[in-house]
Amino acid sequence: MTEFGGVPFSTEDAVLDSRRTDRSGSAVEGRPEAVLLPRDAADVAKALRWATSTGTPIVPRGAGTSLTGASTAGTGTVVLDLSGMNRIVSLSAADATAVVEPGVITADLDRAAATVGLRYAPDPASHEISTIGGNIATNAGGLRCAKYGVTRDSVLGLSVILADGTRIETGTGTFKGVAGYDLTGLFVGSEGTLGVVVSATVRLRPIPAGLTTIAASFADAAAACTALAGVPGQPVIAELLDAAALRAVDAYLGTSLAARGSALLIVQASTVDSPGVLSALRPTAVSLEVSSDGDALLHARRSALPAIEQLGRPLIEDIAVPRSRLPEAITAIADIAARWQIPICTLAHAADGNLHPIIVDDPSRPAAAASAADEIFALALKLGGTITGEHGVGTLKREWLTRELDPANLTLQRGLKNLFDPQGILNPGKVL
Amino acid sequence: MTEFGGVPFSTEDAVLDSRRTDRSGSAVEGRPEAVLLPRDAADVAKALRWATSTGTPIVPRGAGTSLTGASTAGTGTVVLDLSGMNRIVSLSAADATAVVEPGVITADLDRAAATVGLRYAPDPASHEISTIGGNIATNAGGLRCAKYGVTRDSVLGLSVILADGTRIETGTGTFKGVAGYDLTGLFVGSEGTLGVVVSATVRLRPIPAGLTTIAASFADAAAACTALAGVPGQPVIAELLDAAALRAVDAYLGTSLAARGSALLIVQASTVDSPGVLSALRPTAVSLEVSSDGDALLHARRSALPAIEQLGRPLIEDIAVPRSRLPEAITAIADIAARWQIPICTLAHAADGNLHPIIVDDPSRPAAAASAADEIFALALKLGGTITGEHGVGTLKREWLTRELDPANLTLQRGLKNLFDPQGILNPGKVL
Ligand SMILES: Cc1cc2nc3c(=O)[nH]c(=O)nc-3n(C[C@H](O)[C@H](O)[C@H](O)COP(=O)(O)OP(=O)(O)OC[C@H]3O[C@@H](n4cnc5c(N)ncnc54)[C@H](O)[C@@H]3O)c2cc1C
Ligand SMILES: Cc1cc2nc3c(=O)[nH]c(=O)nc-3n(C[C@H](O)[C@H](O)[C@H](O)COP(=O)(O)OP(=O)(O)OC[C@H]3O[C@@H](n4cnc5c(N)ncnc54)[C@H](O)[C@@H]3O)c2cc1C
Repeated sequence: MTEFGGVPFSTEDAVLDSRRTDRSGSAVEGRPEAVLLPRDAADVAKALRWATSTGTPIVPRGAGTSLTGASTAGTGTVVLDLSGMNRIVSLSAADATAVVEPGVITADLDRAAATVGLRYAPDPASHEISTIGGNIATNAGGLRCAKYGVTRDSVLGLSVILADGTRIETGTGTFKGVAGYDLTGLFVGSEGTLGVVVSATVRLRPIPAGLTTIAASFADAAAACTALAGVPGQPVIAELLDAAALRAVDAYLGTSLAARGSALLIVQASTVDSPGVLSALRPTAVSLEVSSDGDALLHARRSALPAIEQLGRPLIEDIAVPRSRLPEAITAIADIAARWQIPICTLAHAADGNLHPIIVDDPSRPAAAASAADEIFALALKLGGTITGEHGVGTLKREWLTRELDPANLTLQRGLKNLFDPQGILNPGKVL
Repeated sequence: MTEFGGVPFSTEDAVLDSRRTDRSGSAVEGRPEAVLLPRDAADVAKALRWATSTGTPIVPRGAGTSLTGASTAGTGTVVLDLSGMNRIVSLSAADATAVVEPGVITADLDRAAATVGLRYAPDPASHEISTIGGNIATNAGGLRCAKYGVTRDSVLGLSVILADGTRIETGTGTFKGVAGYDLTGLFVGSEGTLGVVVSATVRLRPIPAGLTTIAASFADAAAACTALAGVPGQPVIAELLDAAALRAVDAYLGTSLAARGSALLIVQASTVDSPGVLSALRPTAVSLEVSSDGDALLHARRSALPAIEQLGRPLIEDIAVPRSRLPEAITAIADIAARWQIPICTLAHAADGNLHPIIVDDPSRPAAAASAADEIFALALKLGGTITGEHGVGTLKREWLTRELDPANLTLQRGLKNLFDPQGILNPGKVL
């Protein structure tokens, strides 16, 4: 067989180095042997046939924005870089669907949909840089999840190349379908360990008319969560920033949000729900702003990560808890920060109980960040939640996966991996 | 081992006969040897350990309302009847979740949720008689799917007893979670062939305020679909009845809907969207009724099945097509009815492209109904759709499943079955 199955590739130093790690910045031994640059599904199939015949570990990669080490690639591996397969193959306003290659940038698809009055709903904060293939492989969430659900809820069908190079089609082009076991759902969130997505049929949504955005400051996160619980209807967005996050934003944007109250809640809702949202928030809010320009009020939220980056290297954690346990979680995280004397700024997709405690690493005390992270994961499980709401397991949470899942579940997880990838060449060392 | 593992059972004639078939009325050889009546998860585990040790085929059963023969049980099988495990274990308004046993009747859960201002969204037309366990095992749809998605979209986590009696927990109690492969999604829709659901954590939704319902008659289904395509926002419900269905309803209710137009479209939408809905429907509608009492306008839709039953035994088919192909599908189905000289009344969850062509069986010409059904399935595939939108495969569509799925997909489907149930004792002969 020709080198790398005849698929275009690069072995340039700069290219190999750039595909070594991902946005988690996690450590990895060495670097990949080559970066394959498939142009189409046929190239991906060739690459995987070659990998199977040579027993080479393959790391599928979109944009490398993973926060869990899912797309890291060390010595002995070959990266399959799908970012070049980035065509929107078709987009039908009548069907409210699109067929896309995996390398399409998330926000590009949303913009293409907007030209016909639709939206691609899943909007991870990374949507300007992440790919649809990576979103599918991680089941990415985002701000609009409160209303539309996660990436899974927008994926109707997939074309996947299996480890041995076979191509399969899953799901259908329709909104509903129950023909056989849900293979689509199985590939979604599988982090490149079960197959490589080469095409996806996704569902688009109508752009909701007349949204109102409300930013309300509260004395503390508990008050904000209690107020949110009284909100009627289904908010489109409900984001919470804790005191530490507000201080970081203030320093970055020159605002004075932290002075208003220790927690900021930003709720976007339909015009029909918004009077009820206002009534629910007003009694306990210490200040309140209403706007039909959602972007203006969401600016603080969207600036939070760059703001925190000013403080040091951010370790972006990602847990979810039942909604009623949010205040408890936020308080406990602040305690953990105090105990380990390390800044932790918490952002939350509050309607979904999904928290991003962002630990600012202190290079002089590496154990502090790691210990704080461990306590955060333990907290999530204690509160009946999960160690990952939307970022996935990657390499960084493998240990913790075995604590969240019971042994019988883990046995089935390993059985699934073995069924789809008996040689273990697809993103080995990730998830399981 | 004690008989049936020590689980309560019945071998009374009447009980065995009543669990032989399901609402598809499909033919089955003989009847089950016994009907097990587990009281709790421990009983289910005992039953499956016994079944594994004796190699006995087990047919899990909820209410037996399957329309595909999924819960039929013939000679040599033992039915595991879960209808007695029907407790709502907990319901949390604060978390908007409930934990339920599988035998809970769908509408009972919805009513329990309503007492705290929430709804259990999935509402198959059978919701007063079907069980949550059956809904999960078939990934049931319903009228409100247009807005809330199918049963999968309301299931957060499951407790499942595997074929060998092991209990596993899948998913989490939170709205979002991506820890490991999506086993929850794999069990949903697996029709009792991968494991037995003994408990489910489901998501509840806020009851939307101020809905408006609009019933509009159109000259034909194509006009109705075109008008629907222009509707803004996401309708909560969008149901279509074709001319044959309207004639049946008229005969049953004494109405004169068919005289108004050959297609009736019933759209329920939020107050904010409803002016836009009206503007979209009015120009081409031949008559139009608006009400804040959705039940009144939906009465025609809910009466359709009993109405059609007056004409003879209904064979309720269930295909889905991309939304833009709905008019074509409806016309083609009317052609099939004319060609086989057999009445076919079509109801559609129009926003989802999900059609229920209901064939009225003519016992004197059994081949006619079967041939018409085959042509309907072929039509679905030709239009880029699926042979089942929400009812599942059961025994009646097994053949057709092999035409919808490609060979590589089928191989994986069989691999999954073998991984979860190596002895093949769980609902054998169903789906695959
Ligand atoms: C600033 C920032 C903000 C973020 N915000 C969010 C957020 O709000 N919500 C959220 O969920 N995540 C967020 N993330 C995390 C990350 O962006 C997501 O996980 C994203 O889905 C990864 O996409 P990617 O294209 O970068 O994938 P990569 O990082 O390249 O890969 C991620 C995983 O997917 C696999 N993969 C990639 N493409 C394919 C394919 N075609 N077939 C099979 N497997 C494939 C890889 O092997 C790897 O396991 C954020 C990250 C950053 C840096
Ligand atoms: C009048 C009428 C209207 C209908 N309308 C709709 C509709 O709008 N939408 C729709 O989707 N369906 C509809 N159906 C079909 C049917 O009601 C659904 O498929 C329903 O989900 C079946 O529930 P059940 O409790 O009756 O399950 P059953 O018929 O008893 O079983 C169905 C399948 O689920 C399995 N099963 C049951 N319980 C469990 C369990 N606890 N664990 C594992 N497997 C289990 C069985 O083995 C079988 O494979 C309708 C049926 C009728 C008669």
